[in-house]
Amino acid sequence: MKIAIVTLEAFNEIDSFLASAILNRVTGEGWEVQICCPTAEVTSMNGVRIAAQQRLDYANEADVVLFGSGMKTLEYANDPAFIAQFTLDPARQLIGAQCSGGLILHRLGLTKGIISTDSMTAPFLEKEGLRLSESPLYCTGNIASAGGCLASHYLASWVIARKLGWQAAADIIHYVAPVGQKQEYVDRAKATILPSLQDVA
Amino acid sequence: MKIAIVTLEAFNEIDSFLASAILNRVTGEGWEVQICCPTAEVTSMNGVRIAAQQRLDYANEADVVLFGSGMKTLEYANDPAFIAQFTLDPARQLIGAQCSGGLILHRLGLTKGIISTDSMTAPFLEKEGLRLSESPLYCTGNIASAGGCLASHYLASWVIARKLGWQAAADIIHYVAPVGQKQEYVDRAKATILPSLQDVA
Repeated sequence: MKIAIVTLEAFNEIDSFLASAILNRVTGEGWEVQICCPTAEVTSMNGVRIAAQQRLDYANEADVVLFGSGMKTLEYANDPAFIAQFTLDPARQLIGAQCSGGLILHRLGLTKGIISTDSMTAPFLEKEGLRLSESPLYCTGNIASAGGCLASHYLASWVIARKLGWQAAADIIHYVAPVGQKQEYVDRAKATILPSLQDVA
Repeated sequence: MKIAIVTLEAFNEIDSFLASAILNRVTGEGWEVQICCPTAEVTSMNGVRIAAQQRLDYANEADVVLFGSGMKTLEYANDPAFIAQFTLDPARQLIGAQCSGGLILHRLGLTKGIISTDSMTAPFLEKEGLRLSESPLYCTGNIASAGGCLASHYLASWVIARKLGWQAAADIIHYVAPVGQKQEYVDRAKATILPSLQDVA
């Protein structure tokens, strides 16, 4: 399975790498998690330069596409040539967005009136008529949005749960969770993610 | 203030970038948070290549040094030439380690018999006579260790709280926490970190 983590110039490190690191914990299933960028290298909002693992068009052939966030996502979302590169299909793909990645999800016509996003992005999406979810993870079928950097572990876990079932996600959350708080993290993730799974069960 | 996030070959993305991204949220204080590597570029445990912002010797002059973790930390910790590069001073510096970064902390003689680390690293440190903390963050004065990838937000918040007070840390945790769970995250971080602050107050 191919998983694209779309990671743009001035990207937020938590949003791309928390999701990718958790998804990379899936073993023995042939998952290929790739940081996908518009150029061969991009620099984070905090000045960390990284090399792309794939270009953006990997997203079009991927089984899962997650849009990370960053300081320039609004510029990207407002660039028709950038948006036109994506030919995504929510009937075939799981598609998710983290924080300002929701701006791209919206421009792609993939939001269904409600979105979970961060407080900085929220005014832009409200102005376009979207309602804000009060949950860190909002899902409609194969489309999900997450709000607040640390909610990226819910977005990644939603992907794992959708593809391999809840227990596979729970095992990985248990592994990455803080010592002494592992069951608490699993329980909260379950309460956050499970309603969206029943929706499609 | 100079902050070194020591990031080695085969590094764990969560452990370096969750801490660095949170520390970079401190504004107006002149904080300089730098990813420090043994070479000009390193590649993560999941194949993401990044450019160093500083070399390792930046850690020696830094005010705060955090050792990230990864798949080769044991090799680094067992290399006397690698360890000899560090001339750290816990009287002057805050020094922390995440998961397998605790192996380096131990080799530097900076652990005081108890450490918080992840379940994969734990057997190596127990064999050397260390006791394992059941808390995600264990602090003795200016030295801290954290266990479980997501505990890196506690390690970073401990640094902020030690330098700028608890409220500064709470504000940043509130910002990065998942939508709808922000107060819950702040409260749990407070319960986790505050005992270590009273120790040095």
